[in-house]
Amino acid sequence: MMWERMPGLFRLPEQAPNADICLFGAPFDGTSSGHAGSRYAPNAIRAASEFLEEYSPIQDRECSELSAIDVGDLALPLGNAESALSQIKEATEAILAKGQRPVMLGGEHLCTLPVIEVMAKHHPDLVVIQFDAHTDLREEYLGERLSHATVMKHIWPLLKDPQSIVTYGIRSGTKEEFALLKRCRVSGPIDGVIANRLTALRFHLEALKDRPAYITFDLDVFDPALFPGTGTPEPGGIWFDEFIQVVKLLSMMQIVGMDIVECCPPQDPSGNSSVFAAKIARELLLLMGGGPS
Amino acid sequence: MMWERMPGLFRLPEQAPNADICLFGAPFDGTSSGHAGSRYAPNAIRAASEFLEEYSPIQDRECSELSAIDVGDLALPLGNAESALSQIKEATEAILAKGQRPVMLGGEHLCTLPVIEVMAKHHPDLVVIQFDAHTDLREEYLGERLSHATVMKHIWPLLKDPQSIVTYGIRSGTKEEFALLKRCRVSGPIDGVIANRLTALRFHLEALKDRPAYITFDLDVFDPALFPGTGTPEPGGIWFDEFIQVVKLLSMMQIVGMDIVECCPPQDPSGNSSVFAAKIARELLLLMGGGPS
Amino acid sequence: MMWERMPGLFRLPEQAPNADICLFGAPFDGTSSGHAGSRYAPNAIRAASEFLEEYSPIQDRECSELSAIDVGDLALPLGNAESALSQIKEATEAILAKGQRPVMLGGEHLCTLPVIEVMAKHHPDLVVIQFDAHTDLREEYLGERLSHATVMKHIWPLLKDPQSIVTYGIRSGTKEEFALLKRCRVSGPIDGVIANRLTALRFHLEALKDRPAYITFDLDVFDPALFPGTGTPEPGGIWFDEFIQVVKLLSMMQIVGMDIVECCPPQDPSGNSSVFAAKIARELLLLMGGGPS
Amino acid sequence: MMWERMPGLFRLPEQAPNADICLFGAPFDGTSSGHAGSRYAPNAIRAASEFLEEYSPIQDRECSELSAIDVGDLALPLGNAESALSQIKEATEAILAKGQRPVMLGGEHLCTLPVIEVMAKHHPDLVVIQFDAHTDLREEYLGERLSHATVMKHIWPLLKDPQSIVTYGIRSGTKEEFALLKRCRVSGPIDGVIANRLTALRFHLEALKDRPAYITFDLDVFDPALFPGTGTPEPGGIWFDEFIQVVKLLSMMQIVGMDIVECCPPQDPSGNSSVFAAKIARELLLLMGGGPS
Amino acid sequence: MMWERMPGLFRLPEQAPNADICLFGAPFDGTSSGHAGSRYAPNAIRAASEFLEEYSPIQDRECSELSAIDVGDLALPLGNAESALSQIKEATEAILAKGQRPVMLGGEHLCTLPVIEVMAKHHPDLVVIQFDAHTDLREEYLGERLSHATVMKHIWPLLKDPQSIVTYGIRSGTKEEFALLKRCRVSGPIDGVIANRLTALRFHLEALKDRPAYITFDLDVFDPALFPGTGTPEPGGIWFDEFIQVVKLLSMMQIVGMDIVECCPPQDPSGNSSVFAAKIARELLLLMGGGPS
Amino acid sequence: MMWERMPGLFRLPEQAPNADICLFGAPFDGTSSGHAGSRYAPNAIRAASEFLEEYSPIQDRECSELSAIDVGDLALPLGNAESALSQIKEATEAILAKGQRPVMLGGEHLCTLPVIEVMAKHHPDLVVIQFDAHTDLREEYLGERLSHATVMKHIWPLLKDPQSIVTYGIRSGTKEEFALLKRCRVSGPIDGVIANRLTALRFHLEALKDRPAYITFDLDVFDPALFPGTGTPEPGGIWFDEFIQVVKLLSMMQIVGMDIVECCPPQDPSGNSSVFAAKIARELLLLMGGGPS
Repeated sequence: MMWERMPGLFRLPEQAPNADICLFGAPFDGTSSGHAGSRYAPNAIRAASEFLEEYSPIQDRECSELSAIDVGDLALPLGNAESALSQIKEATEAILAKGQRPVMLGGEHLCTLPVIEVMAKHHPDLVVIQFDAHTDLREEYLGERLSHATVMKHIWPLLKDPQSIVTYGIRSGTKEEFALLKRCRVSGPIDGVIANRLTALRFHLEALKDRPAYITFDLDVFDPALFPGTGTPEPGGIWFDEFIQVVKLLSMMQIVGMDIVECCPPQDPSGNSSVFAAKIARELLLLMGGGPS
Repeated sequence: MMWERMPGLFRLPEQAPNADICLFGAPFDGTSSGHAGSRYAPNAIRAASEFLEEYSPIQDRECSELSAIDVGDLALPLGNAESALSQIKEATEAILAKGQRPVMLGGEHLCTLPVIEVMAKHHPDLVVIQFDAHTDLREEYLGERLSHATVMKHIWPLLKDPQSIVTYGIRSGTKEEFALLKRCRVSGPIDGVIANRLTALRFHLEALKDRPAYITFDLDVFDPALFPGTGTPEPGGIWFDEFIQVVKLLSMMQIVGMDIVECCPPQDPSGNSSVFAAKIARELLLLMGGGPS
Repeated sequence: MMWERMPGLFRLPEQAPNADICLFGAPFDGTSSGHAGSRYAPNAIRAASEFLEEYSPIQDRECSELSAIDVGDLALPLGNAESALSQIKEATEAILAKGQRPVMLGGEHLCTLPVIEVMAKHHPDLVVIQFDAHTDLREEYLGERLSHATVMKHIWPLLKDPQSIVTYGIRSGTKEEFALLKRCRVSGPIDGVIANRLTALRFHLEALKDRPAYITFDLDVFDPALFPGTGTPEPGGIWFDEFIQVVKLLSMMQIVGMDIVECCPPQDPSGNSSVFAAKIARELLLLMGGGPS
Repeated sequence: MMWERMPGLFRLPEQAPNADICLFGAPFDGTSSGHAGSRYAPNAIRAASEFLEEYSPIQDRECSELSAIDVGDLALPLGNAESALSQIKEATEAILAKGQRPVMLGGEHLCTLPVIEVMAKHHPDLVVIQFDAHTDLREEYLGERLSHATVMKHIWPLLKDPQSIVTYGIRSGTKEEFALLKRCRVSGPIDGVIANRLTALRFHLEALKDRPAYITFDLDVFDPALFPGTGTPEPGGIWFDEFIQVVKLLSMMQIVGMDIVECCPPQDPSGNSSVFAAKIARELLLLMGGGPS
Repeated sequence: MMWERMPGLFRLPEQAPNADICLFGAPFDGTSSGHAGSRYAPNAIRAASEFLEEYSPIQDRECSELSAIDVGDLALPLGNAESALSQIKEATEAILAKGQRPVMLGGEHLCTLPVIEVMAKHHPDLVVIQFDAHTDLREEYLGERLSHATVMKHIWPLLKDPQSIVTYGIRSGTKEEFALLKRCRVSGPIDGVIANRLTALRFHLEALKDRPAYITFDLDVFDPALFPGTGTPEPGGIWFDEFIQVVKLLSMMQIVGMDIVECCPPQDPSGNSSVFAAKIARELLLLMGGGPS
Repeated sequence: MMWERMPGLFRLPEQAPNADICLFGAPFDGTSSGHAGSRYAPNAIRAASEFLEEYSPIQDRECSELSAIDVGDLALPLGNAESALSQIKEATEAILAKGQRPVMLGGEHLCTLPVIEVMAKHHPDLVVIQFDAHTDLREEYLGERLSHATVMKHIWPLLKDPQSIVTYGIRSGTKEEFALLKRCRVSGPIDGVIANRLTALRFHLEALKDRPAYITFDLDVFDPALFPGTGTPEPGGIWFDEFIQVVKLLSMMQIVGMDIVECCPPQDPSGNSSVFAAKIARELLLLMGGGPS
């Protein structure tokens, strides 16, 4: 007899010998300034993945071909960001110690910080590819240094240089943040001309393709029409067709880790946002397992 | 004094002498694996049609010009698929017997099966044009042969050959289903390059335009951003602008019948999905009445 | 490091030596005629239990004092009632074989049938105490023998006699069902005079208190104002204060097993129904662990 | 073959020889100051009645025993109160002309005015029993004479005297309205001591029981916990148990007509309010057919 | 011409000469562990008050008779509890300095702390009357000293003794908190026998009626059926009829200040919870202006 | 200490010396035939603007650079369109008298009429640029002359000629309205070919750029996927990328006033529509302050 409280994402097993990819949930949303609720995302996305096929016609590959496990969620303290981050860090270290590549399912974007801290120490020439609506480059936000709105600022000093960051889809920030952003590798103009944005991404990726790459995927990069269930929705985002092109470009990279953050299920009473997040997660996982053929 | 419980779709009358088109509802959703609720669609779409104009600027034509009636819904038993399908079959036969063209408003996609059974017997060289997110080509689903996920598989043997089926918008299925799908006339690549998809459709339609055509329109072919209220939402669907082009292409066909299925009103608390379904129904009905000028 | 996909109900462990109570989920809602969705209940109730205290001031007892485990959910096929029931039966047998008392978290009310089949074989003089809004005494419903609306009818022949069933809170059924119901031990008049209903329950329980008792708790016994999230809401139900009195009366019984069914989370966008169900589950679990002091 | 767009309330037929009761919908909500949407009530209540049994254990009677028809809805102009009211008046006259007793399903409370205009002319000693949260006794509201908030004021001059009105459940109004209200037969004190309220109702009904009685039932008389889906929810309303007692008292009256108004389905996303309204409608209809045995 | 961004609660003016009562909003919900959103309450309650009458038939008094102003909301930093509390403290001091009695509209329950800090210094023998579902007596919660779950613990040392606190409606807490709670004046047994609870309240109030009283009203004291829109709903709360009795008892007290907290509008999509909170606020405000006659 | 009931849109002050732009709310929705609720828009949009940055990367400009004030809302009578319009007219005159440019935040589209009445008298060669899904060119609607569906018809005689009106995005109306519409400057074909629509707009704007321009922006011009929260959603609308191009084109105009209407917050339970409306308002306001650089 098989019992389980919650099936793994796309029915990934909880353990497997020699697993290459280790997915875990980081259900923390303690600094969310808009709508809180991303702490519910990991299980909501797992549950939604039962609505979808394991097979991707885009990549002609299916989840059962992956050497991946879904070990479940960390038990994180809601009110204490420092302690939560330290647990995520420890978990990432444990995964790397087993020779696995981590995939963190947030939670809010701040959860990315401890993962990259560990990754950047392990891969000194790490590249970070940020999909996001917001710059997340503030020094502090609402009086707090550790916040989803400051996460990328804290990541800068962990990397070789700002040019080790590629951004995609950013369309919101203060004037100061946008000034700062120019020091990174920004994909395309801010006003949404798609062709240029993809062209820029290809250019940046080709320049960096020999370095280990980490993808931090803030789902609010998508237009809120596709993905209303997020904490700080920002009109004017990217569409699914563009995402398919992005996936194809990313397949040239050596992906050593990844996170998918800022799904906020309570914001979308239809539940479709969790289904959407699950499909994105499927494509990104399959990409780590080999990418489009 | 005029009383009526529910006005007809776009105020179509319940009866009219020499009506050419006979619309009826098939409120059955007994095999829905995702969200049930498409049984509420026929009346929700009728009610939503009161928010919209009867006139289509796209086709420069209005519903009052149609020789069409809306006879209401069949009273279908929720728990018994076989009996429901047999009633739909009988209704379709009765409509054909009167020399009318049937338009079935679902309900789930399985309701299409008995309609096509009758149509294919009546028009031995029938062409089926399937708009759908899913292949619906499984042998059985969750242990049941009769299911919304198997409907197209059961339709194959009713037609001359698999090449009598044109598909549009499919983006989800198992690996095996996609292998099978290649035997049909698939419109465009699966990864969403719009131009090609429309070009392919034109190619297929031109090849088949002398044969009687039946359109089965699963509304989940649209992107869930446009149409969140469906039972198994699948990200990455088609948009309204593309639909307008599709309507123009379809005007070359001899349309002998049609169905519009898988609107699930409870999934969309705003009610906008029913309005959307009503507008699609208006354009498809006007197409049957003559198509774009 | 501790990972887990979904914490146990009120943080019950997944395993414990010599556990006395074994809770499991049966996420099946395949015959729901009203709103489907009770398949989501087990995990929704587990998640909601994190909003609540483990301590009950009503019983002055807390969950950590229980010798209980939450082993997770069965993986049940949605479309196949017979197969689902057979898995639930097998699971119940396995639990009894370990000398544990089962607590099944539904899912729809039909899931109760296989549990009682096993319990009644094991305890030939089993008493069933049914909390419910509906009689559930139909011979068949919508053409199906196995249905949430027929479950109690199928349970009758498994017990010594209809007088082995105590009902509480029933307020809906056909004329024929109410006629049949009179052969059971009905608690109180049907028109809701609370004092009599509790008095009747006390009378019945005292008569049966030396026999092993199984509680089947259909949450729709509560008024929909308290518990809107259920599949077939029936106005005029019981209130929480009355439930507290019921719990006190039940403490005289030898409870050998229990189920809690028909929570339908998607029907209540506020999520409060799952919180409510969790509190009911806490009180009933604590009752099994000893009852009010 | 049977087709119908929308089944009748509790499956009442559209016509029947010698029908005694004629139910019709008046979907008008043009003066709603709170939430509009009661225009959707008649069909929402009809649809919800399919979730419920036709049999009432409270009255031991079922809808199929009634000599009643549901003729459907009037087609009322949304923006023009005068024209809408005049159509309702004409419909009521037509029903009386056939020797039937009218049951109007609103729509907002203003729809009651033309019905009572006709009824009071036909039954010069008519008694009106008003269930309501609000006095509805304003001279004008937001600059309009014809408004849901003025309806009872306009009814006064149509009756023999203010003592021909019995009110029940009123808990909101201006100081001036409450002063005026004292001239009617108010049931019980305004502060909600239930026993007294029922006692007062019995007293008033006994005094009036030889006169023809019309019931105007504004569903907002119920507590918003039971019935959130109404246009101007007013906390502190009556409960279902009290309603059962009310039904028993009303059975002494000669009921010549009735309306049930102010169900606003869009306000309650769970749909439970429409189920609730349907159950109330069932009990009131059965009461007209004979009352509790 | 009159412009205003948001009318005052029940149309109270922003300023008035010699105002006796000064209402202000404290939109802070930074430590909410359940659902955040009470920061939206002050304006949601103001807006909802437009649905209600200014006149209370319960107290036969209306808001326009009050010598009260609604000065608007403080601009509080979301992420910084210490700074928010310090602003609330400063505001309370300013109000007292003008000889006015403060009424704070939360926000979460933690906002009560700085108000009582000021009040207790000003009135050394202050009595606090706490309406609440939760004890709020933890030492710390989720690692934080300042939290809605610890607020009453921090208030203890500010008062003469624990017997200066009267509690009403508490039904949730840890075992340790309930042990501690016994040192306060607890109204009635915890298991909800209403008569006793009111009797106990009367007993306590009579003992304290010569001392200045502050009411802290956590709206979650009500049953979630009445008031679903709160951050940590706890089944089994008080009802509106009981509240009316409470208001009558409170009229014997010398009320020197008050707060109304934990309305969380986003949790209740119908908006009825804000209407409910407005009605409670109306009764409590009128009570301060004199109480029931 | 700073108190305020509701912050200004993007924190604009309530007053400022020599302000050039004066924004005010007109919360009137009394003629809404679809969903009412736009009366809640001004405050919902203000509140949502706190989720967004004041800086626009599209125009590289921020709200704090504007010489603009937000004076709050008019207090409009819900049930009396004539009186509401007359107040809006008076307010517009007062703003012009101060030498300010008015920005009206609706409310329904009918609120535009009195603003343009005043503007057209002040600027005899006024150009009106209408963004809308609907023609709004009926003579009367549901028996009323003054309606959101007739507003543009009433504006025609106020302007020099129909060619003083530029329309954009219209896709719904009767056959007669579309015939009439051809006399205006229609941007692009009605069937949604984007490139042409922008080209046409550029052509019209260049022809009119020396005349004072008033923008009336009915938010239902957007696709309901982006903006579900509107009273009469019409599938097939414009997208955000296209809006950015529109903003760039509009920067050539001399904008003397503007309105933004038909946001209906209750229709979108996620609240995202108000966020969307706020972002549109930000771009249009910044445009008035100088336009894209």
